[in-house]
Amino acid sequence: MLSSHILLIHFFKPHSFSSNFATMTDLPKAMGLLRTVFKNHAGKDGDPKSLNKKELSELLRAEFPEAGSTSKNELDKFFKSLDNDGDGVVSFEEFVTFAAALTVICHGE
Amino acid sequence: MLSSHILLIHFFKPHSFSSNFATMTDLPKAMGLLRTVFKNHAGKDGDPKSLNKKELSELLRAEFPEAGSTSKNELDKFFKSLDNDGDGVVSFEEFVTFAAALTVICHGE
Repeated sequence: MLSSHILLIHFFKPHSFSSNFATMTDLPKAMGLLRTVFKNHAGKDGDPKSLNKKELSELLRAEFPEAGSTSKNELDKFFKSLDNDGDGVVSFEEFVTFAAALTVICHGE
Repeated sequence: MLSSHILLIHFFKPHSFSSNFATMTDLPKAMGLLRTVFKNHAGKDGDPKSLNKKELSELLRAEFPEAGSTSKNELDKFFKSLDNDGDGVVSFEEFVTFAAALTVICHGE
């Protein structure tokens, strides 16, 4: 889903931007935060490169403490909708796609 | 493209999370930063809800000062690839999709 942009993005030599959080501009900072959130939870058990259902549930509780609890059924449905390729885990790309969709929901006009 | 998630996302009542940047957790903070970057540049001239080519170019220069300059031809191609619906401007959703793709490029394994 995001692959169509991947080729062109190389124009901007992303590796060239600062990795020092203090001096980062906002867009690289937002990108870095998404990676941090994913890594903090994906690494807990099993494969550090993907989120299982338990890790996703803990991520959501940690990141949205005010959003209230989610039933098992809701979480199952939600997990399934994130797991685009149906391999039973949520990859970094699938997580970023969720974060992007949530951003559009919350901040789009 | 992001619409498939939009329905399920309402489970998490996103409006319930803190809007105070200092107390925000990382995921809402990243989402807020994406909105800030977009608004800072989209509002410069014309429609404050979309980026024209000049605004996009300024956004990229401001956010990736180390990425070097981009030729007119490169910018035209890049702008076209972001403008998914071909309406001649980059919407918030199209911008967030770009940011998500760049995040996967830079931070995905």
